[in-house]
Amino acid sequence: MSLLEEKTLSTEKIFSGKVIQLQVDEVLLPNGKKAKRELIKHPGAVAIIAITDENRMVMVEQFRKALEKTIIEIPAGKLEKGEEPSACAKRELEEETGYDCESIELLNSFYTSPGFADEIVHVYVAKGLKKKENAAGLDEDEFVNLIELTLNEAQQAIEEKQICDAKTVFAVQYLLLQEVLKN
Amino acid sequence: MSLLEEKTLSTEKIFSGKVIQLQVDEVLLPNGKKAKRELIKHPGAVAIIAITDENRMVMVEQFRKALEKTIIEIPAGKLEKGEEPSACAKRELEEETGYDCESIELLNSFYTSPGFADEIVHVYVAKGLKKKENAAGLDEDEFVNLIELTLNEAQQAIEEKQICDAKTVFAVQYLLLQEVLKN
Repeated sequence: MSLLEEKTLSTEKIFSGKVIQLQVDEVLLPNGKKAKRELIKHPGAVAIIAITDENRMVMVEQFRKALEKTIIEIPAGKLEKGEEPSACAKRELEEETGYDCESIELLNSFYTSPGFADEIVHVYVAKGLKKKENAAGLDEDEFVNLIELTLNEAQQAIEEKQICDAKTVFAVQYLLLQEVLKN
Repeated sequence: MSLLEEKTLSTEKIFSGKVIQLQVDEVLLPNGKKAKRELIKHPGAVAIIAITDENRMVMVEQFRKALEKTIIEIPAGKLEKGEEPSACAKRELEEETGYDCESIELLNSFYTSPGFADEIVHVYVAKGLKKKENAAGLDEDEFVNLIELTLNEAQQAIEEKQICDAKTVFAVQYLLLQEVLKN
């Protein structure tokens, strides 16, 4: 056991919703004292860096109630129960953008807010995009606009804070690095 | 008003803790239907990309109860009420690492989990690090180990998933890009 580890003394379940669960754990600290930890359980998510044959990033414009504003993000979505992340990535790409892809590869997985949440995002790179006929649609409470940006336009959108979430800023930086390494 | 916007019909406050608050909003969707949104309110945070004169990244090893494991992250912490982000960044750097810095500059700010939380992380770059005598210590429920990694070691730690959170993966990728651009 790590010297930093915190042992759970008790768990109080506060809320169980459609997306998240909240619990407060009482823990034993490394120094023998007690503390409370407010913890969000989340099913995990995928995000997709999807590049068209014209070298544009496929993005969606979406209203985010938590932020009370509309922002531009790479396509993303929550894992369904028992769903394999790469299958989820293909499904979300189709539902949000209408694109099917020839290849989809895991680039990285990261926790978004380790201080209070267990949410992990699996980031995929999708290539060989083709518009799919009769593509599956969005969830009934989901509304997005599809937009396609060059890397320069995406960098501009970061400057202007239309792109302002961790996974999308990471995605743009990743493609910028690939671009620089190519030259 | 954007065509994607969701109007709040009612707000149910579920939990108000030391770190987060949880509420469930009923919203009016763009198509006139209703839906529920589970929303976490968070005070916001800072994170610091701190580089020593020996060109090492200053990191902390920390047990994260939400993940039930110890991971390696760049120094970070929550904004106190009314605290200016750059002051918070200097404070957290000192408390978690014992370093003072000559310069600290905002690199970027991003939302970590826009699907359910309003948490924003302001990422700073700190240079001219000096060990501070009588540096302020950690919060009473906070325990971290200080470690300093070369960029190669940090990339290795990503491969081995010891580094596995959004802000730190972003930080390593940022420094890698700076390194490539220099050459």
